Amino acid sequence: MMKNTQPVSLKQVKIDKGFWGYYRDLAFSSMIPHQWRALNDDLSDAPPSYSLRNLRLAADRNRGLSSGETYQGPCFLDSDLAKWLEAAAGWLAARPDEQLEKSIDEVIDLLAAAQEADGYLNTFGSLVLGKNRWRNLRDEHELYCSGHLIEAAVAYFEATGKRRFIDIMERNVACIAEAFGREPGQRRGYPGHPELELALMRLFHVTGNPHHARLARYFIEERGQQPLYFEEEKKRAGREQADWPPYIRPPLRQYQAHKPLKEQQTLDGHAVRALYLLSGLVDVAAESGSSELMQTAERLWDNCIRHRLYVTGGVGSTHHGEAFTFDNHLPNGTAYAETCASIALVFAARRMLEVQPRSAIADVMERALYNNCLASVQLDGTRFFYVNPLQVWPSASQQEPDHWHVKPERQKWFGCACCPTNLIRLLSSLDRYVFTYNSQTIYQHLYIDSEAVFSMANGLVQLTCRTRYPADGAVTLHKDGAACRLAWRVPGWCRQHTLMQDGRQVVPDIENGYIQIDCPAGPVTVSLTFDMQPCRVTCDPAVPENIGKVCLQRGPLLYCLEEADQGRELWRLYLPDNSPVDLDWHQAWPGDIPGLKAAGYRQADGSVDSLYRFAETPELVPVRLNFVPYYVWGNRGPGEMLVWLHALPG
Amino acid sequence: MMKNTQPVSLKQVKIDKGFWGYYRDLAFSSMIPHQWRALNDDLSDAPPSYSLRNLRLAADRNRGLSSGETYQGPCFLDSDLAKWLEAAAGWLAARPDEQLEKSIDEVIDLLAAAQEADGYLNTFGSLVLGKNRWRNLRDEHELYCSGHLIEAAVAYFEATGKRRFIDIMERNVACIAEAFGREPGQRRGYPGHPELELALMRLFHVTGNPHHARLARYFIEERGQQPLYFEEEKKRAGREQADWPPYIRPPLRQYQAHKPLKEQQTLDGHAVRALYLLSGLVDVAAESGSSELMQTAERLWDNCIRHRLYVTGGVGSTHHGEAFTFDNHLPNGTAYAETCASIALVFAARRMLEVQPRSAIADVMERALYNNCLASVQLDGTRFFYVNPLQVWPSASQQEPDHWHVKPERQKWFGCACCPTNLIRLLSSLDRYVFTYNSQTIYQHLYIDSEAVFSMANGLVQLTCRTRYPADGAVTLHKDGAACRLAWRVPGWCRQHTLMQDGRQVVPDIENGYIQIDCPAGPVTVSLTFDMQPCRVTCDPAVPENIGKVCLQRGPLLYCLEEADQGRELWRLYLPDNSPVDLDWHQAWPGDIPGLKAAGYRQADGSVDSLYRFAETPELVPVRLNFVPYYVWGNRGPGEMLVWLHALPG
Repeated sequence: MMKNTQPVSLKQVKIDKGFWGYYRDLAFSSMIPHQWRALNDDLSDAPPSYSLRNLRLAADRNRGLSSGETYQGPCFLDSDLAKWLEAAAGWLAARPDEQLEKSIDEVIDLLAAAQEADGYLNTFGSLVLGKNRWRNLRDEHELYCSGHLIEAAVAYFEATGKRRFIDIMERNVACIAEAFGREPGQRRGYPGHPELELALMRLFHVTGNPHHARLARYFIEERGQQPLYFEEEKKRAGREQADWPPYIRPPLRQYQAHKPLKEQQTLDGHAVRALYLLSGLVDVAAESGSSELMQTAERLWDNCIRHRLYVTGGVGSTHHGEAFTFDNHLPNGTAYAETCASIALVFAARRMLEVQPRSAIADVMERALYNNCLASVQLDGTRFFYVNPLQVWPSASQQEPDHWHVKPERQKWFGCACCPTNLIRLLSSLDRYVFTYNSQTIYQHLYIDSEAVFSMANGLVQLTCRTRYPADGAVTLHKDGAACRLAWRVPGWCRQHTLMQDGRQVVPDIENGYIQIDCPAGPVTVSLTFDMQPCRVTCDPAVPENIGKVCLQRGPLLYCLEEADQGRELWRLYLPDNSPVDLDWHQAWPGDIPGLKAAGYRQADGSVDSLYRFAETPELVPVRLNFVPYYVWGNRGPGEMLVWLHALPG
Repeated sequence: MMKNTQPVSLKQVKIDKGFWGYYRDLAFSSMIPHQWRALNDDLSDAPPSYSLRNLRLAADRNRGLSSGETYQGPCFLDSDLAKWLEAAAGWLAARPDEQLEKSIDEVIDLLAAAQEADGYLNTFGSLVLGKNRWRNLRDEHELYCSGHLIEAAVAYFEATGKRRFIDIMERNVACIAEAFGREPGQRRGYPGHPELELALMRLFHVTGNPHHARLARYFIEERGQQPLYFEEEKKRAGREQADWPPYIRPPLRQYQAHKPLKEQQTLDGHAVRALYLLSGLVDVAAESGSSELMQTAERLWDNCIRHRLYVTGGVGSTHHGEAFTFDNHLPNGTAYAETCASIALVFAARRMLEVQPRSAIADVMERALYNNCLASVQLDGTRFFYVNPLQVWPSASQQEPDHWHVKPERQKWFGCACCPTNLIRLLSSLDRYVFTYNSQTIYQHLYIDSEAVFSMANGLVQLTCRTRYPADGAVTLHKDGAACRLAWRVPGWCRQHTLMQDGRQVVPDIENGYIQIDCPAGPVTVSLTFDMQPCRVTCDPAVPENIGKVCLQRGPLLYCLEEADQGRELWRLYLPDNSPVDLDWHQAWPGDIPGLKAAGYRQADGSVDSLYRFAETPELVPVRLNFVPYYVWGNRGPGEMLVWLHALPG
């Protein structure tokens, strides 16, 4: 099964106004420079990154200039730098910036200098492993780092047209391709942390080199085959190579490497790995035309979406191994819901949409983007969540080890800083998630104020999307150029929508959740209106955490309660089923997003002063409930937060 | 403040019929022999205990017979044996048993043989520590084991009148008293695991030797003084002495040794330690007459009861360090509620009652005894829970590390087997919890079928209590002998009670929750009836876990739902506020305890097949709810269990 549509490339879509204009500006003006300082160990009161320091050491060593200093920090630091490079390249694509391009080029110089003669490129490998390269694929992330560098090189090539970085990475891929495979003398290994698979497919898409796609397919298909490579690796080492806790040690499920992907029924293990792998799997399945691989991808996707997804678009139910657990286990207070995992979900969703546009997939992508991903950054762009919970009780975060990972405040930087750099590369490549298209049809998945150009069967098509979405549900689209078919997603949360074409209401067909109309050549104006009445969301009762509870959503934005508005012990609050929910413009957030308000109740202490009471009816006191969008929680000092609150049948 | 009443001694009360007759028989006929086999490493399919094996090694070593074998198992194994000895002595007190007495005497022979010349007695110490005795009081449990052996010796003395064991332990105490204290050359240490404090007070009570009480007071008052002994100990060792995880390492709160007891505001740290310590504290405070120590005891007790107690009488909210966490944090699914901790709560409650009978204290004692403690043993007496949860989801127990400690089935034995031996010593000393008394008044705290004799100011009093409690709430009391005052607790769960004296209804005074009447010399018959209508229990809304939820109690017995009756996903069940709860004699349990039944609802899947739903009203389907007493849960194969279920306001 080939892909039905393709993604846009960098520079094809322009986003600089509307809701996302704010975040794009923030990414470009604040987050990219802030993170550059972080990568240069230049932030006060934050743990050092060591990324650039290590790379300089490796370049010096390769040039024969050894200072005697050694590698510092975890083994995967090249990836932080790579993600920053990818984000910075996105900025160059949007707006030329000489100073930034110079910084990027300097890093590329360092990478070129650090690359070994045979193409091997990994700072940790060169400085620490030496001749022992590839000794511990399960844990040492050499292939993972190559994947991120490849993604950066592709973005840089798309942004600047300069091939230098991509040449470096093709030499690196050649070195990897020689080392891994099923030929005599090769290792039958695969990455402990997937990422290279999807990166190789991106490299294939820009270079057209089929070797890259073949190598990606090898990694996908070899994974989990007998004898299990990671077990063989351990045998060769003669010992357990990393001091993993017992919940990770035996079954290799944590690495999605316990059995071949085709035999895996559920999306398991480390959530980021699982979703990077799923992204690569979709690309490989589509390119190879393997229906078995595609069915595997759909099965794993469906399992994730149907049983393992938080309402915020977060994934990963436990901090133990940052992992999925089991179906319908979605604890709110101890959720992991790592920022990177939600970003990886966006990646996977886009690829699923390329295969077959279905609005339910885009719904998930939108949910993750507007909620879990966006909540991970402070409104000023300088602090980040790694973990994105649905319930915060600061006493627990301070005093109970199972809650230690849940921070009531965003942090400046992290010892493992995968999330902030991942977020900026998502923000600076946001254009890739708005549309996919083929020679006949342009599918619009997200309603983001943007301008775009598509080269279609009948010629060029210019599309302009003007909207304040998600401040309101009005979207105006101007199409010009060649005749084509246009398709717009009807969001799953939308109860009612209207479409006006050149001033007249139209009732078009809906296919897979997309409104579709044929546009003649020349200008066409279409107005879409999505009803954005606040909605109550309930959960499948198979999930124990959310029974009897409700949360609020308006458009794609989920809402929550905060101590700043309601005082402590948010769990005492009830939202009656029959209580109207109104917009609260008194409390508007960046992008003109309103708060929500409703009449509710708070359970009072009761008349009995004891922990347990006999035959006492709970005393409910009327109270006004003030909800804020989930993406802005934690911007008013630390405190409690709650997404799911008690419903009161009315 | 002296104690107002005293406990009974062994042989003073006889319990062999009624509800507890079953468990006493079980303890004596099944559990004591079963555990004797366990302590002799004679159980198949269970981890070895090593207790007797190690003791034999130590005795041999002391006699100069070294086999070259070494100590095995954790350092505190003497305590398992000691608790078994204490329980076995209780059996001897109830019924002479030559074979059992011979087994006990053989262990005492071994203890005598293992005791070092200066009185030191600890198997681990003699075999492993050698000259390094007392090097690590925080972790190595030498003083703790002495405490348990003292308790066993006291019980054996009370049961048999034989002094040999008590002489051994007084020599051991002399050795300890020489090593610890504030004199030059002494260590200013105290036990890492409290127990010796309360044991010394028991030894003081039977021997009258004031040195024992003084040593107990030293340990209580020295604890947590600056410089912190456990920090000094670590400095001397030059390293962290045990590989404790970070949540235990720094603050010594885990050991209640971070500051002096008088400055501690909340009952913190390892729950068993905290409650053994509190028990010793009450004894020391009462004996010393220190109102400051007594206020400390009351403050810590009140904190525990008001904010840290499960409705089952369990304590300890986290498996991390088997510990208390913070106020109102009482998670059901991950509760630790260790059997030993609930037993320790019973110990502490009895001592609080000795100081001042208050029914609220006895309510807690009864709650712990009939629920958490009793649930810890299989109905056949051969399997045990260490952890006693309020919600069991087997998928989580299998797949989620935070739930690993929650077992859906009782186990035969444990690597750390403190609980089973603690339970049998509780069962065989049950008589100590029924009454306390002083020269004027006998207070009855628990309604247990029993016969007792008291020596009072006016002469001997014989008391016979006949009851099927908690099968029903009828209690008949025959008093004979001298004139005295009798006082009976009115349970907190009881909405209505009546008292008939010699056939006439009486409305007596109630003081501190106790009905009190003056009885003349000669026979008096009193009938008490406690209304045992099933009650709904709700929880302080400051506890997030239980908001909107309810559980059922009848008399002292809490009820729960099980998969065996209701199928899976028990969290879908609702109990309407207006649904009558009836007794279900169709499903009666040992002791003639009925099940409970009520009309309820189960939330159906709903019409939408997706994880999240917009504006969908939950669909509730009528269903019959069958509740079983909590103490019998898990006797019909592994499966889900739930104490707190959703209430449905009616």
